[in-house]
Amino acid sequence: MQRYKATVSYDGSGFTGYQIQPKGRTVQGEIEQVLRKLHKGQAVGVTASGRTDSGVHARGQVIHFDSPLKLSGDQWIKACNSLLPDDISFSKVEEAGSNFHARFDAVQKKYKYFLYGGPIRDPFRRHFAAHIRGSLDVKSMRRAADCLKGTHDFSSFCSAKTETDNKVRTLFELEIEEQGRELVLTFVGDGFLYNMVRIIVGTLLDVGSGKLDIDAIPDILSAKDRTMAGKTAPAEGLYLWEVFYENGK
Amino acid sequence: MQRYKATVSYDGSGFTGYQIQPKGRTVQGEIEQVLRKLHKGQAVGVTASGRTDSGVHARGQVIHFDSPLKLSGDQWIKACNSLLPDDISFSKVEEAGSNFHARFDAVQKKYKYFLYGGPIRDPFRRHFAAHIRGSLDVKSMRRAADCLKGTHDFSSFCSAKTETDNKVRTLFELEIEEQGRELVLTFVGDGFLYNMVRIIVGTLLDVGSGKLDIDAIPDILSAKDRTMAGKTAPAEGLYLWEVFYENGK
Repeated sequence: MQRYKATVSYDGSGFTGYQIQPKGRTVQGEIEQVLRKLHKGQAVGVTASGRTDSGVHARGQVIHFDSPLKLSGDQWIKACNSLLPDDISFSKVEEAGSNFHARFDAVQKKYKYFLYGGPIRDPFRRHFAAHIRGSLDVKSMRRAADCLKGTHDFSSFCSAKTETDNKVRTLFELEIEEQGRELVLTFVGDGFLYNMVRIIVGTLLDVGSGKLDIDAIPDILSAKDRTMAGKTAPAEGLYLWEVFYENGK
Repeated sequence: MQRYKATVSYDGSGFTGYQIQPKGRTVQGEIEQVLRKLHKGQAVGVTASGRTDSGVHARGQVIHFDSPLKLSGDQWIKACNSLLPDDISFSKVEEAGSNFHARFDAVQKKYKYFLYGGPIRDPFRRHFAAHIRGSLDVKSMRRAADCLKGTHDFSSFCSAKTETDNKVRTLFELEIEEQGRELVLTFVGDGFLYNMVRIIVGTLLDVGSGKLDIDAIPDILSAKDRTMAGKTAPAEGLYLWEVFYENGK
């Protein structure tokens, strides 16, 4: 058996999420079905760096799986992409060590969140960026973002359903760029709690629209109370952009 | 009654085309349904600059309609966009003279066609750009495009179903730009025959992939025979980008 590491893109709008569920179309379900076909009906389980929710996209999700097949990266890509539905695509496949683990070995992740403001909806962005009716004060959003960078207990910024006990995470990067008429928020961290990016975005939107003062951010952090932070921003703006592993993995 | 001119964007992937049909979801059908609601059940017909086929997009389709309502442009946009499905959006509405006609008064149109080459499909572009497996010789495509600019009988470059007798049209512009890893072909002309842009793109793709020699282009033009040109390129790459009217319309 050879362990393979694959990088996968998907448009999340047609899925109930990454992870296999009893009902609904999932990314994992589609991938495992294709791998089963390539293995003459034998089930091949895949393990991802983490789940993504319904409607959330991925540019660089990473998965691993074991296979007796000896194919090159390009051969895997060709074989899988010809069978996968057109909203999922393998962009890279490489051999990995037998102890490589897509989830446990991930040391950092990068997410991006796309949004735009203004009175007019863009039909071409409806699944790919969040639309905010009003205008946004980007400078204030950047200052609020700076308060969230670094190592904090992010209890206020994760879903009440989060099961992990330790909610301390480090945000190495939280940048807000203007790309054309859109804002792109880039998050790099050593780990992200459930809904953490979307709740941070929702809170920054409250700052950008003047509903929330920047000075409130440290208080929200120290309250460790989900109800203090902003709403969970919509799924369609969010992309799992890249997963980082240690050298040689 | 006041005549209004509206600029409309739509993602064509969910429609059987622009024009109302007995079966299937159409852009015109959705717009007329919304206008009917805004007019207390009274039917309001809309006239577009032209049809677009199933899967073809618009960034700047222009329509006109008559209404007894006296609303400002922003009020029309707000009222229509709140009722329209999220794959159609009004971006501009203005008062027009009572003799303004979205189709007959159009003097030029701009189309864009987006495509990309390479072995890996992009799930995010599957409805918005055509994917070509091989690589393309852009220089040759540009030289072939230059042969098509100007005034020609485009009989070889329109669907055999075209009903217009006069197939002479002028292409003022046919540029090929590289935008990231995509090619964007921009067409500006005084009029376009049925499938003309897509057949030109299909023929340029034959040149770009080495299947067709540039010298063949003048022969294809003079043959006035649809079977001499390339295949009709897929709908998903095509956008009606802008419609031009004479000053003051």
